[in-house]
Amino acid sequence: MPEQITLYTAKICPYAHRVELALEEAKAKYTRYEIDLTNKPVWYAPEVNPASKVPAIAYGGPLVPADQPSPESVKIAESLVLLEFVADLFPEAHLLPSNPVLRAKARFFIDAISTKVTGTWYSFFRKGGSPDEFFTGLEVIQALLPPSGFAVGEYSIADAAIAPFLARAWVNLENDTGAWKEGDGATVLATLQSARFARLNQYIQDLEARPNFKATFDKEYIAESFKRRFGNLRAQAQNQQ
Amino acid sequence: MPEQITLYTAKICPYAHRVELALEEAKAKYTRYEIDLTNKPVWYAPEVNPASKVPAIAYGGPLVPADQPSPESVKIAESLVLLEFVADLFPEAHLLPSNPVLRAKARFFIDAISTKVTGTWYSFFRKGGSPDEFFTGLEVIQALLPPSGFAVGEYSIADAAIAPFLARAWVNLENDTGAWKEGDGATVLATLQSARFARLNQYIQDLEARPNFKATFDKEYIAESFKRRFGNLRAQAQNQQ
Ligand SMILES: N[C@@H](CCC(=O)N[C@@H](CS)C(=O)NCC(=O)O)C(=O)O
Ligand SMILES: N[C@@H](CCC(=O)N[C@@H](CS)C(=O)NCC(=O)O)C(=O)O
Repeated sequence: MPEQITLYTAKICPYAHRVELALEEAKAKYTRYEIDLTNKPVWYAPEVNPASKVPAIAYGGPLVPADQPSPESVKIAESLVLLEFVADLFPEAHLLPSNPVLRAKARFFIDAISTKVTGTWYSFFRKGGSPDEFFTGLEVIQALLPPSGFAVGEYSIADAAIAPFLARAWVNLENDTGAWKEGDGATVLATLQSARFARLNQYIQDLEARPNFKATFDKEYIAESFKRRFGNLRAQAQNQQ
Repeated sequence: MPEQITLYTAKICPYAHRVELALEEAKAKYTRYEIDLTNKPVWYAPEVNPASKVPAIAYGGPLVPADQPSPESVKIAESLVLLEFVADLFPEAHLLPSNPVLRAKARFFIDAISTKVTGTWYSFFRKGGSPDEFFTGLEVIQALLPPSGFAVGEYSIADAAIAPFLARAWVNLENDTGAWKEGDGATVLATLQSARFARLNQYIQDLEARPNFKATFDKEYIAESFKRRFGNLRAQAQNQQ
């Protein structure tokens, strides 16, 4: 039986969302504590995560209010570490397959997300310029997908690792909230919805139809937050040119 | 019972060395195939690893010569994926602890190696400049170590992930083979051997005393290879200034 789990998270954050997806998938009992990233509580860095980022989990120790973390709980950070942690805590949820080769494929998929997708997306999102590297990264991911189903067949932490990024990228493209030239959001979205990315689109539909996603993704809130926080990205990027 | 394992590796490569350490620690039966990185076999990228890097493992399939890989074996790349794969294949070797919290600590340690050590080392090694970020990265690692023993107490893939980098960094510093100013290798080494890094030094001694390390690290060969391949780093870096 796992001990108490307190998740420090933020709705806007794709890294934190990964861990919520895994916890929901495992039907874990956990306390969710929203951190306002624009005004972080003073106790958060010293008492939970010295890197001052979400996500983090306080695991075990006495039952205490989330905003008064106990020194007796173990504090764990880094979304990918936490995905494996949740998989380890809830083996019956099969968040990783039991076959070693499929486990390796799930981890290779996760590595491809880190090296080919998140960086290329942020670069386009924050600096504008060409979306080509982002497209190429998504093609790598698409090529790793089996003909149907999730990253390694059954749902796994590999899917929880990518869903938050794809969902947020699409929201930003739909709302044209990024550093790119005005209107480019729609153009890029058109490419992403074309036959070139047919398998990826099916995959995204499957990811978003999953109950764990529906329970953790508040599209309106995300769209509004991005508009507020990043509405001026385009202006900033243009000023720097 | 694991199936046949063929490891494509190169003595000079720290990423590949990680996997050799894990396989040796697990007392795995495997075929070791040295790839000459300065003259890679034409079949390597198309038939083993499209990224054309070592390490890679061909797992299962019929028994074939390593230089005639079978399409029936599964090909797996990326050193950190392979460390987990070896741990999964040989559970009795306990390359990861069974306690989920300790497993998370091992993976957090590995994450710190990737984000704080390898990049800061390569930047100093290849471009010269200040070693301060490398020192800071090593301090992070040192702070994660328990008072004695390995990264999470017993030997684990966290130790296999860092040993190859530390060993090669030290060799390069000892031989002053890096982009830094002539003689800086010794100065940096002196700092690394000072009281500031006492716990790290003990750790390195423990890592290098381990049979899996002795069986896989050919110091003379590494030193010579670095001299040959990177002897002109300093000249290159100076030309770029
Ligand atoms: N490598 C970390 C990245 C986490 C991260 O960057 N989180 C962001 C929000 S998405 C954060 O908390 N940033 C600190 C801040 O905004 O002050 C992980 O994978 O967990
Ligand atoms: N991310 C890879 C990096 C592997 C890597 O960079 N290997 C180098 C040698 S150390 C390589 O094979 N480079 C290709 C070449 O030298 O042609 C891993 O962790 O396995």
